[in-house]
Amino acid sequence: MNTFGQLLRITTFGESHGPAIGCVLDGCPPGLALAPEDFVHDLGRRATGRTRHTSQRHEADAVEILSGVYEGRTTGTPIALLIRNTDARSKDYAAIAQQFRPGHADYTYWAKYGHRDPRGGGRASARETTMRVAAGVVAKAWLRAHAGVEVRGFLAQIGSTRAEGFDAHSPDWSVVEGNPFFWPVADDVPALESAMDALRKSGDSVGARVSVIADAVPAGWGEPVYGKLDAELAAALMSINAVKGVEIGAGFDAVTQPGSVHRDVMRNERGRIEFATNHAGGIVGGISTGQSVRCSIAFKPTSSLRLPVESIDTAGAAVEVVTTGRHDPCVGIRATPICEAMVALVLMDQALRHRAQCGDVAPVDVRLADARKP
Amino acid sequence: MNTFGQLLRITTFGESHGPAIGCVLDGCPPGLALAPEDFVHDLGRRATGRTRHTSQRHEADAVEILSGVYEGRTTGTPIALLIRNTDARSKDYAAIAQQFRPGHADYTYWAKYGHRDPRGGGRASARETTMRVAAGVVAKAWLRAHAGVEVRGFLAQIGSTRAEGFDAHSPDWSVVEGNPFFWPVADDVPALESAMDALRKSGDSVGARVSVIADAVPAGWGEPVYGKLDAELAAALMSINAVKGVEIGAGFDAVTQPGSVHRDVMRNERGRIEFATNHAGGIVGGISTGQSVRCSIAFKPTSSLRLPVESIDTAGAAVEVVTTGRHDPCVGIRATPICEAMVALVLMDQALRHRAQCGDVAPVDVRLADARKP
Amino acid sequence: MNTFGQLLRITTFGESHGPAIGCVLDGCPPGLALAPEDFVHDLGRRATGRTRHTSQRHEADAVEILSGVYEGRTTGTPIALLIRNTDARSKDYAAIAQQFRPGHADYTYWAKYGHRDPRGGGRASARETTMRVAAGVVAKAWLRAHAGVEVRGFLAQIGSTRAEGFDAHSPDWSVVEGNPFFWPVADDVPALESAMDALRKSGDSVGARVSVIADAVPAGWGEPVYGKLDAELAAALMSINAVKGVEIGAGFDAVTQPGSVHRDVMRNERGRIEFATNHAGGIVGGISTGQSVRCSIAFKPTSSLRLPVESIDTAGAAVEVVTTGRHDPCVGIRATPICEAMVALVLMDQALRHRAQCGDVAPVDVRLADARKP
Amino acid sequence: MNTFGQLLRITTFGESHGPAIGCVLDGCPPGLALAPEDFVHDLGRRATGRTRHTSQRHEADAVEILSGVYEGRTTGTPIALLIRNTDARSKDYAAIAQQFRPGHADYTYWAKYGHRDPRGGGRASARETTMRVAAGVVAKAWLRAHAGVEVRGFLAQIGSTRAEGFDAHSPDWSVVEGNPFFWPVADDVPALESAMDALRKSGDSVGARVSVIADAVPAGWGEPVYGKLDAELAAALMSINAVKGVEIGAGFDAVTQPGSVHRDVMRNERGRIEFATNHAGGIVGGISTGQSVRCSIAFKPTSSLRLPVESIDTAGAAVEVVTTGRHDPCVGIRATPICEAMVALVLMDQALRHRAQCGDVAPVDVRLADARKP
Repeated sequence: MNTFGQLLRITTFGESHGPAIGCVLDGCPPGLALAPEDFVHDLGRRATGRTRHTSQRHEADAVEILSGVYEGRTTGTPIALLIRNTDARSKDYAAIAQQFRPGHADYTYWAKYGHRDPRGGGRASARETTMRVAAGVVAKAWLRAHAGVEVRGFLAQIGSTRAEGFDAHSPDWSVVEGNPFFWPVADDVPALESAMDALRKSGDSVGARVSVIADAVPAGWGEPVYGKLDAELAAALMSINAVKGVEIGAGFDAVTQPGSVHRDVMRNERGRIEFATNHAGGIVGGISTGQSVRCSIAFKPTSSLRLPVESIDTAGAAVEVVTTGRHDPCVGIRATPICEAMVALVLMDQALRHRAQCGDVAPVDVRLADARKP
Repeated sequence: MNTFGQLLRITTFGESHGPAIGCVLDGCPPGLALAPEDFVHDLGRRATGRTRHTSQRHEADAVEILSGVYEGRTTGTPIALLIRNTDARSKDYAAIAQQFRPGHADYTYWAKYGHRDPRGGGRASARETTMRVAAGVVAKAWLRAHAGVEVRGFLAQIGSTRAEGFDAHSPDWSVVEGNPFFWPVADDVPALESAMDALRKSGDSVGARVSVIADAVPAGWGEPVYGKLDAELAAALMSINAVKGVEIGAGFDAVTQPGSVHRDVMRNERGRIEFATNHAGGIVGGISTGQSVRCSIAFKPTSSLRLPVESIDTAGAAVEVVTTGRHDPCVGIRATPICEAMVALVLMDQALRHRAQCGDVAPVDVRLADARKP
Repeated sequence: MNTFGQLLRITTFGESHGPAIGCVLDGCPPGLALAPEDFVHDLGRRATGRTRHTSQRHEADAVEILSGVYEGRTTGTPIALLIRNTDARSKDYAAIAQQFRPGHADYTYWAKYGHRDPRGGGRASARETTMRVAAGVVAKAWLRAHAGVEVRGFLAQIGSTRAEGFDAHSPDWSVVEGNPFFWPVADDVPALESAMDALRKSGDSVGARVSVIADAVPAGWGEPVYGKLDAELAAALMSINAVKGVEIGAGFDAVTQPGSVHRDVMRNERGRIEFATNHAGGIVGGISTGQSVRCSIAFKPTSSLRLPVESIDTAGAAVEVVTTGRHDPCVGIRATPICEAMVALVLMDQALRHRAQCGDVAPVDVRLADARKP
Repeated sequence: MNTFGQLLRITTFGESHGPAIGCVLDGCPPGLALAPEDFVHDLGRRATGRTRHTSQRHEADAVEILSGVYEGRTTGTPIALLIRNTDARSKDYAAIAQQFRPGHADYTYWAKYGHRDPRGGGRASARETTMRVAAGVVAKAWLRAHAGVEVRGFLAQIGSTRAEGFDAHSPDWSVVEGNPFFWPVADDVPALESAMDALRKSGDSVGARVSVIADAVPAGWGEPVYGKLDAELAAALMSINAVKGVEIGAGFDAVTQPGSVHRDVMRNERGRIEFATNHAGGIVGGISTGQSVRCSIAFKPTSSLRLPVESIDTAGAAVEVVTTGRHDPCVGIRATPICEAMVALVLMDQALRHRAQCGDVAPVDVRLADARKP
């Protein structure tokens, strides 16, 4: 279905080249300040056409708040957000409407539904992620106001180029926000620009890896077994277009770690619990530890290439597919705010669920002196 | 919560050293043959104490079917399964009841709930996964009977030792089932035995990587956007104890692939769709392609070690933790059937959902000649 | 939350005097013909201002289909529907923004949320039901096309006036649709017109009782225990504004029936199952019997009256409340299409769930000769 | 499905004559005192064989707590409860296994599933309600401890005999608990005993009406639109076997009330909100008002009669059905604790959901002086 979350539920709708995209965000507590301007920053960070390195589709992405907000504050009723599509050029896609583009959802939608909207990828387009970012704006605001939680991401790898020589647990966020790649190492940016220009000219594409860090998440959020915080993060992030892998904390590196290294040692630092390391990524047993929650996400390379490829059409005839539309040579670049949004939505949902079962949200620092009594 | 799935719902309960563990499997179609003996094989594959390489806790794991089956066939009502715990030795844990074992859920449960069952890890114990395997037996049986789907896994890596020199898309399953590690390369087994013996003696532990392949999944299973087949697989697999990463198809390798390589080319092979490669892992746009569904799962090393480690207790005092109970030096070894079970549960749930919305389950081979008309 | 249904899910949003109301209908099978014109008939039946007997708010109720339909047919992706509010007159309500109108949700929203939209009742307004009717149009169309099911309602009682002298199991639907009250007895209409005129002049209001009949529902829809067809109908109908009671079949009359009378006798009429009576209302054990599904719904009288009433305001001060806005003297009159919509949504959801678990929808007539084999 | 509730979820399983019945209650807050003895009182109130007026099946109904409780308090993990069936006599039913008993779910289960457990009604038996009562014990205990809420019911009508001459808003609960009918008027009991004896001898049965009152429910519980408190109560109560109607507050009597009478006037009584009447039944706009929540529930007469009736069997042949098993001549008599349980489960679920979205549970008395600020 097109709904995500238990107590904070986002339902999105819309096709890439339909009249509009939108979402309904249900379950938000009342009293949170919210205005159309609040969406501008993150939607801008995600937007196509912001730099020459992403698709040149230009959408104003003006958010209309249709419900759930009165006199500038949320009321507790569903918040409906609407964005009209203004720069859809369906002619770009007419030639390939009956073709199955390799790596795209053309064939799978056809196999499932029989009837589909082929314009711009229809529902399978990354345009859907716009509404995730919009909903994430609300979640980020609530998390910040309610518990001081900050959810931020950066690009850790483009193709075989890895970001190195910085603190991966606490990057300089002004550097990340200061370049079009969300790249944490300022000196690398000129070379990245050149590499991306060359890639775009080649007609090919490349994958990427995004890291997201949620700071100040209190201990105790999450649920054991099937509602584990990491399980829901995995679902949330894997549900983003083009994602092929998700890691929490050490991720696949944990495979080669001895247990004596992996386990994060706890100490009592003047009444406050501190950990020597954070291989767990801030989650143990599905519940947050009070350390930063860390995720890593693998994006596949865009499948829409100017390089021709053989395929078949709906009649089974062999065809040559060439994509001439406006596409990202690396979808991972503007995926950073999308990943942040999904992490924020999961955290807020879990925070509300924790409050439901266990009373109000735990303080950011669980002090041992006044530790919670059973 | 402790329920997983939409139309096929598993609800598990029970603590490691409580009187019993069990599950309720709801939504199974009527008429499926099911008997207590059907659980023996997979529960044996998962069981502790089967070899010297896993925890020496010996549980009979005898499944009692409490409901939902009449005259040997499912009735469509909830199937309740019960296993009594018979080899729980809570004294093994008494010494550490007030200690926070690093890498364990001791602290997070305490921070969340205040009140917890510390015996054997309580609810956070891997014992809970027994019921996943039991439920997975039902899902595997239905998938096989209904659509010919086979879900099988193998161990692809232990610590830094990778399985190599075999067909990772189609391993020799008799080799996999012929050794206690689910290892796909027979010649490696003696060396693995030695390495595990040495590891056990060292008191340390190591991580592992499991691969699961679901063959014969028809095209069209899965849902776009939030109910994506890969998103639900990610949640299902990440919800298993000790998992830190999940990949679909090429996974993190997709980051360095050019788009021209990653996209899987389709061809019409005498009326049947065939793909040149399977980097997608059988899923595009959240929907199955008709190729094998492939997942890779990272397990962290066990945190229960005989090697002492500093930590704190619930009063904040520094303590030294030494785990003397019965533990797996590599939890990943017997995780293979657990991963299979979770994949099978997700696939069956999606198959039922597909049937609900789009009519009966698609044939195993979507032939172009008689392709589904809109 | 603001979502209803399991596999066919309607999520509604919007306030009475906000910019718009809308809904997202998720889970609809692909291939169903759907156009904006399809909504005109039922929205007209529900609309205010259609006759002098309902609120004189005039809304065009023009439905914009924002997603989920391509080339006139549903695609299987979420169908978003939007209606702009055009005749909201918030000034009507300014005077009472801080008052708690007795019988209204003013106080309960205030107690729950603290912050609320008071304009026209905000989210608590019956305007929300417009989107239920819109979604019901889709459900009715699918039920008709798929299984020949027809869902129709009539007004069985206004205040103390009961409709009598007609076949309550099979009224003349052309009579029902031929008058502004959905009244099944044509001769009563002039007197009803007079009574309603007198009521409107008096400034008071009155309750009503609606009956809904779903014909041709096949046997086998519904789920035992918590997902019972009748339980979900009860929730669906009780969720409509102003409803205070729901009956299935004989309803409260069953209290005084002997069991020998209530139980509906079955007979084999030339290979077809027929029942002598339908006290069950077409549902036994939560599952449809193949007889018509019959519900009866009690609506309370409108609480918005021109007759003054004492109350308090948010500061606790005593106030006199007089409602001068545009209101229905009997909300039950135009509730008929709303009740039909809710019944249709529940039936379609259950039909999809039945197909998921038990294979395709049962035929309308379960013939004993070729009765379903286990 | 066999799960009820959003944050407090009960999943029941088991057949009337299977080895056991049970439930999993998930989402209960940690720290609640709970022991097997706590179930004795309410299970005794519901039990068959307690008096000569109910079925003579004698079940010990001994509850085993399988999980979720440690050292006498809930841990926050799922609470599994198990009751072994000990007095199942399947031979009572052998004769009618292929017959469709009128008024029973025999035919509908057969039409839906094809394969069913006919022993004692299988899953459709009222035996399932035992676990509802068990789960309700937990909900009642939490509601009492957390918010002072008391949920109690009485029998308001048996057949055409109505309880009269007592305060229906506040009956004398010691009278209700002092007779086998939960009847609120002590003087009526001897005549009821005689009437029930006569009924039992006649072989026929009769319906009943139960009233449930939840006192001290704070204002603010419930959700607008689809999660309305009254909508969920309606579903919960209608899901009980044999229920044909549900009313909130004035219920069907509201149909004939003028709005000027129905609307409950609010006054400020020394800083506390008081209502002149409670026609709303404590719920307006789907949210509790702070008044007592009142429900009325109609039960049909038992369909298992010694009086013979014509019917058909699975082959379509005409048969005569005579039920010789142990049955209740009036199922409504011991339905009172079942209704209480369902009301308690809904209230607790809503209380948790309210706490999730709006912070901690509202105080029992919302005082205007310190009324909640937005």
